[in-house]
Amino acid sequence: MPATPYLRIDLARLRRNIAVAAELARGGDVALRPHVKTHKSVEIARLQLAAGAVGISVATVGEAETFARHGIDDIFVAYPLWLDDVSAGRLTDLTGDARLAIGVDSVEGAANAGRLLGGSTVEVLVEVDCGHHRSGVRPEDAGAVAAAAARTGLRVRGLFTFPGHSYAPEALATAAADESRALQEAAGSLRAAGVEPRVVSGGSTPSLAHSDLSTLTELRPGVYVFGDAQQWELGSMTPDSIALTCCSTVVSHAGGRVVLDAGSKILGADRAPYASGFGRLPEHPDARVVLLSEHHAVVDLAGAPLPPLGTRLDVVPNHVCNAVNLVGTVYAEESGELRPWPVAARGLNA
Amino acid sequence: MPATPYLRIDLARLRRNIAVAAELARGGDVALRPHVKTHKSVEIARLQLAAGAVGISVATVGEAETFARHGIDDIFVAYPLWLDDVSAGRLTDLTGDARLAIGVDSVEGAANAGRLLGGSTVEVLVEVDCGHHRSGVRPEDAGAVAAAAARTGLRVRGLFTFPGHSYAPEALATAAADESRALQEAAGSLRAAGVEPRVVSGGSTPSLAHSDLSTLTELRPGVYVFGDAQQWELGSMTPDSIALTCCSTVVSHAGGRVVLDAGSKILGADRAPYASGFGRLPEHPDARVVLLSEHHAVVDLAGAPLPPLGTRLDVVPNHVCNAVNLVGTVYAEESGELRPWPVAARGLNA
Repeated sequence: MPATPYLRIDLARLRRNIAVAAELARGGDVALRPHVKTHKSVEIARLQLAAGAVGISVATVGEAETFARHGIDDIFVAYPLWLDDVSAGRLTDLTGDARLAIGVDSVEGAANAGRLLGGSTVEVLVEVDCGHHRSGVRPEDAGAVAAAAARTGLRVRGLFTFPGHSYAPEALATAAADESRALQEAAGSLRAAGVEPRVVSGGSTPSLAHSDLSTLTELRPGVYVFGDAQQWELGSMTPDSIALTCCSTVVSHAGGRVVLDAGSKILGADRAPYASGFGRLPEHPDARVVLLSEHHAVVDLAGAPLPPLGTRLDVVPNHVCNAVNLVGTVYAEESGELRPWPVAARGLNA
Repeated sequence: MPATPYLRIDLARLRRNIAVAAELARGGDVALRPHVKTHKSVEIARLQLAAGAVGISVATVGEAETFARHGIDDIFVAYPLWLDDVSAGRLTDLTGDARLAIGVDSVEGAANAGRLLGGSTVEVLVEVDCGHHRSGVRPEDAGAVAAAAARTGLRVRGLFTFPGHSYAPEALATAAADESRALQEAAGSLRAAGVEPRVVSGGSTPSLAHSDLSTLTELRPGVYVFGDAQQWELGSMTPDSIALTCCSTVVSHAGGRVVLDAGSKILGADRAPYASGFGRLPEHPDARVVLLSEHHAVVDLAGAPLPPLGTRLDVVPNHVCNAVNLVGTVYAEESGELRPWPVAARGLNA
């Protein structure tokens, strides 16, 4: 058994989560292109592809390189990259091995990509802001960006958005409705500019079940493979579907509370405004992680008797993508056996 | 130049910060034992030792192993470890190379350590809670823990505390006063139990300048080498002393704001209650990082003109310890030249 803290995957639950999303996409006749930033694991990407995913989404060129190197041959960098000579060269180097697309969200970004990728097979998707207000153009401006890309000779595959405002209580369905509306308007804007969107891509784990599969042609959820305390608290996944936990040890009873050796350097420091603490304990659903530092989680057990020092306890991180990125290895458990899986694209921010 | 985002160290500022703390300790006739969890870098630890540090503090056995392997021979694991056969064996294996001490904060923890480390040269320090309410015993209970350790044959070096409640506005001096009071009471408790505390260790970067150097014999600050947005906003370090920034690129102007390619996977997701955002921009002190996701920082520039797409901008992370732990390499800059320094103890949570 590895020393605590370590991240453990329940492989049966992971497989089930992968199957559920694959079935949702199949039932709606849309493509599934999971975002692998969540797990950064070649083993898990292969399970997703085996279940019917058409390819993968990544966030960075480094992630694309890692998965292409392991034979995954259909990759969308779902990010409005600002390319330079070096990153453009890294992308074109991959086109021998993989079908590749990137995001753009401005006329300047499209022109820059066209200048640097011109003549390559790299396609572009225009990013649309559907209400998250992070990156992405307004739906009515999508056509201008697509036209700018097309003018440079780039092939425009279509549109994508991330309904990240689904990460709020009661927003799961409304964010999906916003997504549908924005993508429909953006598709109209593309057509008015003379570009037919072949792919209309969206989806997020919280809004997944509410996705408008008559508008979307592709879904890109990431977190659904594992789930996390955010999904638990948003109600988008049930505690018994959560497939990744941090195995930790009770090291102290200071102040009559439980102190675990899992801190922000393995759980991540995420705490959304709606989060009830810094993670959740499956064995103690009423408990709350009330204080988190780098190597301590202080847990209020809500009146339950304190487990003895040395007891092992599982913690579900708030945001699993950031937790996985903190370790070199995750441990996949099946039938009591632990298999080490490398986090192959760990830390590849560029 | 590395692709953005990457972490860059201003080596002149780093050296100055190291010298300032070394001078504070020397002037107060106390030992400096910096916490290397902040940088996890052998190069920086060597600079600290060259400036007069007596040894280092670490948080985990893995960190201790890394620094011992690189020849650093006086290491305190400033954490209430709950040992098992494996971790105790790893510690005793190090005693040939390094003078070693660990923390304990309970009678049971002391007895467990004594059972597993008995006969080794590993010393213990009793952790005291001085108001942060994380780990550590109440000051009046320190003697009982020390006595329990001594009974098992372990050598008790003394006391340590972390005045982490200094991480709040207006709390820098009061937390230092709490620290002094708690350590004095705990020292009395040790003496009443027949144990003379040879070392009384404390300190945190926010409270450092207020430390009671007539009570403390040792200081263990960590963040002071770099500083970060937390120190900037607490007023414990000035912006022009901050020695680590994340170099990022403007990738989008969505919504009339700046979107940078530095997200929580390089800045960390920390956001203390007093933080004004998810990081600060030295070139734009009025700007705020209003939204952070894994690969996006959305910046409100407070009315300043938007820098063009592709512009490089520096961001100071909120909590530098978590940022450094996200990369394999930091880039130390001096006279325009960048030297890659490995984050040798990255991710060693156990």
